[in-house]
Amino acid sequence: MSIELAAPIEGLVNALKRLPGLGPRSAQRVAFYLLQNNDAALLGLLDALETARKSVRRCELCHTLSDSSVCSVCADEQRNRTMLCVVESVADQMALDASLSWPGLYFVLSGRLNPIEGQGPNEIGMDHLLGDLPRRVETDRLDEVVIATSYTPEGDATAYYLIEKIREKCPSIHVTRLARGLPTGIEIEYTDLNTIANAVFSRKDV
Amino acid sequence: MSIELAAPIEGLVNALKRLPGLGPRSAQRVAFYLLQNNDAALLGLLDALETARKSVRRCELCHTLSDSSVCSVCADEQRNRTMLCVVESVADQMALDASLSWPGLYFVLSGRLNPIEGQGPNEIGMDHLLGDLPRRVETDRLDEVVIATSYTPEGDATAYYLIEKIREKCPSIHVTRLARGLPTGIEIEYTDLNTIANAVFSRKDV
Repeated sequence: MSIELAAPIEGLVNALKRLPGLGPRSAQRVAFYLLQNNDAALLGLLDALETARKSVRRCELCHTLSDSSVCSVCADEQRNRTMLCVVESVADQMALDASLSWPGLYFVLSGRLNPIEGQGPNEIGMDHLLGDLPRRVETDRLDEVVIATSYTPEGDATAYYLIEKIREKCPSIHVTRLARGLPTGIEIEYTDLNTIANAVFSRKDV
Repeated sequence: MSIELAAPIEGLVNALKRLPGLGPRSAQRVAFYLLQNNDAALLGLLDALETARKSVRRCELCHTLSDSSVCSVCADEQRNRTMLCVVESVADQMALDASLSWPGLYFVLSGRLNPIEGQGPNEIGMDHLLGDLPRRVETDRLDEVVIATSYTPEGDATAYYLIEKIREKCPSIHVTRLARGLPTGIEIEYTDLNTIANAVFSRKDV
């Protein structure tokens, strides 16, 4: 006796359910919101999706999402072009830049190496990054690449692979990774053991 | 030096931010997901939205969301047509029906009376409900209307207004509201005082 949703409503719920962070209940809530309120919300979302689909592309230089062929960061003359930070996603790039700690340029991979899911080096854009390195060294005098992948098995594999390839291709470049250690503002008591161990191994003179 | 999102990405984030349950961070996460992965996710969502927009309408009888002129519940001959339950939304209708406690039909209002936001009786579909009551009494032998609005100031106002109008129009109909009392499975200690007071006032012989 339970009510079945009509097929097009069910279809919308299913499409929404695939989005990150939306479970079955919140997908249904969003679907009802879009369909029950006047057309404005639904039309607004449709329009924003169409516009983004038409005009958003990848920056030719760094592969971030942009509405122009070269993004505002790569076009920014104030940026230090001798330093390049390789991140896994646009979200990671935004977070790093918001920390105000990086004065250089970025290269945005499309995720991490994940052979099981068919994500090899070319699928995540490494060929593009590596192919452009000689030009960056020559034109931009690039001398440091920071690999800012996460400290997870996949992030590590991506970093190791990339470090080797960069050393093969441009041995003059200084390759680094982000430091690992204790996060700010978290009690040591509540920090995972692996993080503590790495903070011990990387302890610094004071 | 913080990165600004390109206008069409910002537009998509803003459209997503308006959806219930999505804050600025989750809206950005969904936007990046849609734009960074291959076109499939974005196209799938666009298609589901277009299809829903074209084919979903209101049931002529009960105003629920449906893809046909009369919804599956109103068309269901097994339902007890002498009982009508008035709810505030499709989500409320689904929850009530999933409780397997209601054998009758429904009428789905478009929310609650809220004069400040311009939501009068006609805006939420009361005219449609009231206008159809004589037919329901005559054809369906309707004899009970349960008002299943929430016990909030707006839900109460909606119920009181509706009770009066139904009594004026069809005095033969027995009008009820959902019982109020303790929720199942919650310790009394953690129940709000208003709910406890109402459970005391409505206490029952055992």
